[in-house]
Amino acid sequence: MSLLALLAALAASPAPAVVLSPGEIIAAAPAADWSRVPAEDLLVMDLAPDAAGRPRRVVLQLMPEPFSQGWTGNVRTLAAAHWWDGTSVYRVQDNWVSQWGDADGEDKAKAKPLPPGLAAVPQSAYVVHPEGPEKSASHEELDTWLATMEGTHAAWHALTHSKLAIKDADPYADETFFYRGWPLGASRKGPSAWPLHCYGSIGVARDTPPDTGTGAELYAVIGHAPRQLDRNLAVVGRVIDGMAHLSSLPRGPAPMGVYANPAERTPIVSVHPASEVPDLPAYEYLSTESPSFHRYAEASANHREAFYVQPAGGIDICNVKVPVRRAK
Amino acid sequence: MSLLALLAALAASPAPAVVLSPGEIIAAAPAADWSRVPAEDLLVMDLAPDAAGRPRRVVLQLMPEPFSQGWTGNVRTLAAAHWWDGTSVYRVQDNWVSQWGDADGEDKAKAKPLPPGLAAVPQSAYVVHPEGPEKSASHEELDTWLATMEGTHAAWHALTHSKLAIKDADPYADETFFYRGWPLGASRKGPSAWPLHCYGSIGVARDTPPDTGTGAELYAVIGHAPRQLDRNLAVVGRVIDGMAHLSSLPRGPAPMGVYANPAERTPIVSVHPASEVPDLPAYEYLSTESPSFHRYAEASANHREAFYVQPAGGIDICNVKVPVRRAK
Repeated sequence: MSLLALLAALAASPAPAVVLSPGEIIAAAPAADWSRVPAEDLLVMDLAPDAAGRPRRVVLQLMPEPFSQGWTGNVRTLAAAHWWDGTSVYRVQDNWVSQWGDADGEDKAKAKPLPPGLAAVPQSAYVVHPEGPEKSASHEELDTWLATMEGTHAAWHALTHSKLAIKDADPYADETFFYRGWPLGASRKGPSAWPLHCYGSIGVARDTPPDTGTGAELYAVIGHAPRQLDRNLAVVGRVIDGMAHLSSLPRGPAPMGVYANPAERTPIVSVHPASEVPDLPAYEYLSTESPSFHRYAEASANHREAFYVQPAGGIDICNVKVPVRRAK
Repeated sequence: MSLLALLAALAASPAPAVVLSPGEIIAAAPAADWSRVPAEDLLVMDLAPDAAGRPRRVVLQLMPEPFSQGWTGNVRTLAAAHWWDGTSVYRVQDNWVSQWGDADGEDKAKAKPLPPGLAAVPQSAYVVHPEGPEKSASHEELDTWLATMEGTHAAWHALTHSKLAIKDADPYADETFFYRGWPLGASRKGPSAWPLHCYGSIGVARDTPPDTGTGAELYAVIGHAPRQLDRNLAVVGRVIDGMAHLSSLPRGPAPMGVYANPAERTPIVSVHPASEVPDLPAYEYLSTESPSFHRYAEASANHREAFYVQPAGGIDICNVKVPVRRAK
């Protein structure tokens, strides 16, 4: 549906008779509004069981094309080689990130050898540009380009650019939008688009030169969205199940959350591609193209259920948490 | 310093010769730029030691006047009565809140009796209005009113309203600003101002009627800022030390993060006013009026140190984390 057609449809639709909370809208969404998460984009990370012997499984989803593909390719190679098996979560910094990989990676004498076939990904891959030379686009040209990206969320544009009362002010990007279930930012300079650091986003740690991240050292955001990292580090995925196993780990006392004692690290038993984990459930997300997502985002910005006395009238994109669940 | 004078001073000051990170700016801030946190606004919450026997102390700072004073008065009464001693952290929901108080508070037959003297605080106290009847203010009138509030952070206004390259777009409020070290929002309707739900903010849990929160049940934000709660729940303070003891607790598996088994709750040994804790260190915060804070906020929005290849050019107010430390 084109933006104009969608706007017309929205203007024509009557106000809902029953006030639903965002959670109730999710629960009521028809099956047609849910999309399957591609199994080939999933990795399964099993941490060592907790002190009570309970398993700790974390399921990661990789970014779809055309974003961060050099790094997601490396991550696939590392998972296929089972490179993370026996490594650890070695750094947990409060209101920042949990980071995993080879805790000795910075010491060349001790570092675990990387598998062959990893690409060196250039800084330019932090953002995606349309075809042709870089230029400065108008807001209208930016919208037109984004609309050509398969799956760009026209409904979010309708919500934020119409009178439907979502204020989409964003201090970090000229535009924010959803693309195949993912929150993204875009700039008129370039123009360019890029994935965002929201809660649960997974990024590629690196040294100071911007092309030094292989994907072997990864972090998950466990606090307020550190959007200043957008376009400075590569976002390669997100946690879709088991997030609490990363966010509730003890914080490391040393600077940057590093554990003083190696025994405090959380061992990673294995990281497998989903194809090697036959008992993994299928996952689905509330399509960011669907009418239900549209209602969910609008209700998240304007809570009208009885508990709320003051609807916000706006929302930041990292606060519109894309619903993901195990498929029924 | 008036806003105009500050703007003039900023325009006249030369660009810094050395690029400092936000952390380096904090470390270099002179003693004059730090303000003491009033000890009378501090509460000390001691959780039961962790599994390894390590103490878990959380230090809470209450909101200053004129915000949320009905509730902060109740919280002071509850702490003076040692009402929280023997209660627990009974609810931890990922990317949301850790909540404490009487886990049986909703069951009248089991609820712990509250001390006498608690006020019933009306919904109107969620925001602060200037003198006189409500009206709709212009942006200029709002700025003038905010400038009359003692401690309003003129430097933040200068940063966000000048060409100094902080984009302050906020989807939840007409204005955001700092007031005596606290992030606040303001609206031209009313006009009104209110404290924000950022990471570490402490709010008053309640039932559906908006005047039902006493302050006995409190929550701390442990995820992305849930700004939709602003003006819907009372923010009464923030965690200034020991935040990890609340943010790294195991998440409860039941809806809303409630623990299925009461044994999983984290016992609260005691909550004391700071005056009853002689070994408590003094705390200080980087004055939000100071030149160092000004530089810190600007550098947080525009990282120029070597690691960053793309300064954001903007920042959301909950991402400008006000530095608080133990006084030397």
